[in-house]
Amino acid sequence: MADGITHDSEILAREVVARCQTLSRLSEDRESICRTFLSPPMRDVHREISGWAAACGATSTLDAAGNIRLLYPALDSDAPRFLIGSHLDTVPNAGAYDGVLGVVLGIALLSGLRGRRLPFAIEVIGFSEEEGIRFRRPFIGSRALAGTLDDKLLGEQDSAGISIRQAIQNYGLHADEIADAAIGEDVFGFLEFHIEQGPVLDKVGQPLGIVESIVGQSRLEFTFVGQSNHAGTTPMESRYDALAAAAEWIVAVEQKAVRTSGLVATVGAILAKPCATNVIAGETRVSLDLRHRDDETRKSAVEYFIQRAEDIITRRGLKLIWCVGLDQPAVLMSLSLLHEVEQAFRKADLTPFRMASGAGHDAMILAEKVPSAMIFLRTPGGISHDPAETVELGDVAKAIECGLHLLERFTSSSEFMGKRKNA
Amino acid sequence: MADGITHDSEILAREVVARCQTLSRLSEDRESICRTFLSPPMRDVHREISGWAAACGATSTLDAAGNIRLLYPALDSDAPRFLIGSHLDTVPNAGAYDGVLGVVLGIALLSGLRGRRLPFAIEVIGFSEEEGIRFRRPFIGSRALAGTLDDKLLGEQDSAGISIRQAIQNYGLHADEIADAAIGEDVFGFLEFHIEQGPVLDKVGQPLGIVESIVGQSRLEFTFVGQSNHAGTTPMESRYDALAAAAEWIVAVEQKAVRTSGLVATVGAILAKPCATNVIAGETRVSLDLRHRDDETRKSAVEYFIQRAEDIITRRGLKLIWCVGLDQPAVLMSLSLLHEVEQAFRKADLTPFRMASGAGHDAMILAEKVPSAMIFLRTPGGISHDPAETVELGDVAKAIECGLHLLERFTSSSEFMGKRKNA
Repeated sequence: MADGITHDSEILAREVVARCQTLSRLSEDRESICRTFLSPPMRDVHREISGWAAACGATSTLDAAGNIRLLYPALDSDAPRFLIGSHLDTVPNAGAYDGVLGVVLGIALLSGLRGRRLPFAIEVIGFSEEEGIRFRRPFIGSRALAGTLDDKLLGEQDSAGISIRQAIQNYGLHADEIADAAIGEDVFGFLEFHIEQGPVLDKVGQPLGIVESIVGQSRLEFTFVGQSNHAGTTPMESRYDALAAAAEWIVAVEQKAVRTSGLVATVGAILAKPCATNVIAGETRVSLDLRHRDDETRKSAVEYFIQRAEDIITRRGLKLIWCVGLDQPAVLMSLSLLHEVEQAFRKADLTPFRMASGAGHDAMILAEKVPSAMIFLRTPGGISHDPAETVELGDVAKAIECGLHLLERFTSSSEFMGKRKNA
Repeated sequence: MADGITHDSEILAREVVARCQTLSRLSEDRESICRTFLSPPMRDVHREISGWAAACGATSTLDAAGNIRLLYPALDSDAPRFLIGSHLDTVPNAGAYDGVLGVVLGIALLSGLRGRRLPFAIEVIGFSEEEGIRFRRPFIGSRALAGTLDDKLLGEQDSAGISIRQAIQNYGLHADEIADAAIGEDVFGFLEFHIEQGPVLDKVGQPLGIVESIVGQSRLEFTFVGQSNHAGTTPMESRYDALAAAAEWIVAVEQKAVRTSGLVATVGAILAKPCATNVIAGETRVSLDLRHRDDETRKSAVEYFIQRAEDIITRRGLKLIWCVGLDQPAVLMSLSLLHEVEQAFRKADLTPFRMASGAGHDAMILAEKVPSAMIFLRTPGGISHDPAETVELGDVAKAIECGLHLLERFTSSSEFMGKRKNA
């Protein structure tokens, strides 16, 4: 198998890009790419994918969470199973590769096997939902595999008042069978290919990166409460300007993040009241999004930002209201699987460039249940969630090579991540 | 007359406050004070005021701009005329004194004369419009007196598509007669009493202040244009964060204003796009309101703020769009009339505390045509444009005393601001 990789990978890469483009045309919107959880175009996506899978000798089923699951059988029926996948839903006005690429790459690996059966089964999964657009709750698909798609979550409603449970029924699936979607003891690992969605690989000139962790994330909201007043008749020293206070804090947030290696801190949303040219703002609400691979560093930064806000309002005579919206710990990828992926990188003449993922991914959810790994593909310009999102053909070919080398390593090993062959 | 002032002024002040309260109940809204240009409750206000004027021996007319004009005749029919007044319209959810107080105080001065005729006529004016609420164009009433209410302005429409001209016709007045509302050569001065609407007099413990100038005002809008991107996957050093840039600038604006004596600079409105917690802002638009009594200082501050914004965007690799929305020079009150008012202050045992007005007033418009003066009344807590707006009874009494002393000075002088008696 290894000998044929270089030649095959280029052909397969062209097919991968063409297939991503094909799927991008299956959209809820005529003018742009948008495909939310179990929306009508998802049926067309499933039909296309099933056809591609069948051509590789894989069977297709939909589980009760709407994930498409393509099973490429092992030499033996009781062999363990390796999972490869990503998500098929998109944000509004999306690009063609976010999520979809990881599914299509999985199918390309099946193609690359040319019908050869391995001592383990491969299941390629197209997760039904990762972006959290329709129900404002991400990872519906991968949570079903992890066994964490509980009743409370199934009761969440979209803007039309339809619950996840009802959406599943409306699609012709049976929400009562969600538990059957959970993965079993036979699964020894999960691999997700995904575009980086950031500028790091592009900047360092690496086609692929190995994700060693998915950063922890805090989300907070701060409201600076001052006193609105006349912009002309209120001297500077008599003001309780909530927007000026918030601005001082935003500057402090940015400065601290720049000084702290690996920390990203973003104030993305701001709302001043009354928001009038000639009135001093009496209230200003701002968001804070904070991410770091090390939870202690992140928590300490959160404390610092709260303290800075307290300092500012105390000095200015304002009030502060703050709350935590999210406190998500960092998730480490499997060390043993990372080691295998690194070996596959070397075999493909690639530097095993390790990095953290700044965004959440399905691999974060699967990692709760099974050793998981992620391979990032360079994102030109770091542009994603945008029609301009793209991938380099050569990078896709390298991803295919790495994937095939990884499968080869499992094949030639007598153990798969601690599970004995034919266990 | 002078002997009776102290005793009368307390009684008159009680009446003034009671009359302001009476007028505050004549509102477009049931629950709050709101009275815009030629709205139905303005008829009731005019009826009340006409009654009060008649009791003092003054006749009432409405001019074509909807200003109520109360004429208290002189000893001689060809005597010159002194104007006293302020506006009768209000902002939504207003207090009881902004504007109205200046009209009611004028009537109180007529009462204080106890029927005594002076060698000059007094015209008390209740301007129909100053706040600019209904047509987003302030000073409709005073512009008619200044002769600057032109056809273009009369064509401005309210949110219902009704023009100023049509609103005048609908009220039963004749817009074609606007020119007749303009003041003539017989007018030798204008005095406006108004609440300060700021904290200065309250802080220094002065009941009244003499306005020596109405500050010049600049309004600008700045748009910082960066690049929106993923809050998790974009390292700090790869960002073009428009909100962080704007925040840095807002801090610089505040610092400069604090350092510059008499300058007030306000960033009151801000709009970030896309304004999402997990997306770096790609664009942030902010307003700037800048006021100073000295036009050169104000213009130099405007240039400084533009330069600071340019510095910030250059260092950060952003773009900047800015525009000027208003560049209104400062207006000086009449020096000779200021001198007369100062003497009246001293006569009333008050320190002639001079100050600038940070807000525009009808006196600013009248000053184009006639020597004008303003007397501010202390605004407890600096609170205005709010139901909590109030005045001190003792301050109102002092205002009445000052007004009567001023009329007395004119009476005992052989000239009125350069106009000979019975000229």
